[in-house]
This record gives sequence, C-alpha cells and structure tokens, in this order.
Amino acid sequence: MNYSYSTKVKGDFEEVIAKVTEELKAEGFGVLTQIDVTKTLKEKIDVDFKKYRILGACNPHFAHKALSHEEKIGVMLPCNVIVVEAGDDLYEVSAVSPMASMQAVENENLGAIATEVEDKLKNVINRLN
Amino acid sequence: MNYSYSTKVKGDFEEVIAKVTEELKAEGFGVLTQIDVTKTLKEKIDVDFKKYRILGACNPHFAHKALSHEEKIGVMLPCNVIVVEAGDDLYEVSAVSPMASMQAVENENLGAIATEVEDKLKNVINRLN
Repeated sequence: MNYSYSTKVKGDFEEVIAKVTEELKAEGFGVLTQIDVTKTLKEKIDVDFKKYRILGACNPHFAHKALSHEEKIGVMLPCNVIVVEAGDDLYEVSAVSPMASMQAVENENLGAIATEVEDKLKNVINRLN
Repeated sequence: MNYSYSTKVKGDFEEVIAKVTEELKAEGFGVLTQIDVTKTLKEKIDVDFKKYRILGACNPHFAHKALSHEEKIGVMLPCNVIVVEAGDDLYEVSAVSPMASMQAVENENLGAIATEVEDKLKNVINRLN
C-alpha cells in the first residue's frame, strides 16, 4: 500500500516550500508546524543530513470532523508534506496518505473523511507537477 | 489494532503538559512542535472545542535511523502525544503507536525501529500512571 504521493519540483529550497504552502492553502490547508530535520539532527546528534523539511498541514474543517468522529485521531494529525533534497535545485515533495497512516483506526466515518483529505493532498501534488 | 496508548492524569492543563514533556525527555524525546487544537479551531472556523494539545515528539537517534532506512518516513514523523480534557482538572494523555501508523510501510528495518520507539512511548504513558 502506498503511504505517500510524490513529485519532483525544481527551484530553490525556500521557494519550493513557499510554492507547496501556497498549493496547500488553495486546498484549504494551513501549515501549522515546520520541522527543519537537517538542523534538528545537526544540533541534537551532530549528524549531517540532506535538506529535509516537514510541513504539518491541517484543513481545520476536516480536522474538526475527524476529531468529532474519533477523538484520539490527533495522534495522527496534522497531515505531513515533506520537501527533500533530490539533486541540484531539485526537491522531492511527498504528501502522506491519510488512508495509509490511519488504516489501523476502525471507524467508517473517519475512513470517508480520510479519503476526502487524501484527494485534496493528491491535488496539491498534481498541481506541483 | 490499537493505534494509541493512553492514561489519565490529574492536574492543571499546562502542568500536565509539562509533566508529559519531562517524561518524554527521560526517554530521549524532545518536543519539536505543539499544536493548540482548541485555539486553532476557534481562530480558523469559530468552533468551540475542549482543551486539546498535540505534542510532536522526536527522538533524534531513532528518527535518524528511520530516515536512513526509509527516506520518506518523515511524512509520519514526529510521534504525537496528545493531551485532551477529560473532566475537571483531569486530562487523557495518549501516545501514537508508531507500529500502527507505519503499518502500511513495507520495510523490515523500519519495523524494528518502530517497535523500539513504541516501547519508549509506552514507558512514558506507564510512568504517568
């Protein structure tokens, strides 16, 4: 089972992140968190790692619906989109599949919401192509 | 399949969050992100929601191992611990099961790491009892 959807985007790292953020916004997702993986690994364990950012994206309408049907689903929110170095001025952008990450949750109502959110995240990846 | 481990903790909301953060630290996890779900839902869609905080916890050694074996696993990081209002001065603390959230990922090496991280998160929950 696929657990993410990906595409490659040319450009400067911060520019690509800005473009991803803009496309997420067009689908109703705000970026609530950002983790600079490279900086974190350097600071905490002195490891050199490629450019790697985790964006925590949340569509508040869908998040509210999901939380109303399955209170503990917050352990799997927000939906992450990662931007990872893949060459010179080339980045791979991958969005999580909420259907994959939430497959252990047995709740039909949640499944329907995860499907809708997954379609929106796929739209984001497709528009970056 | 269980997708989270939970316990209930008495006290003030911020005190409980501080205690969870401390127990996470004892197992090598830093809290990299915090989402105030209540505030976010109020601001974005004007919904009143119970006290609900999502802590994004990361053990950098395990995160590095996981990323080295499965580059895109960042779509499922960090590991979340949620603190949710459950009564007067009572909060339910739940940690994600990385084995559940990562079950769609077919990678034996990752499975072994997820098991170790899961044990550490269980320790956190058990010590809050």
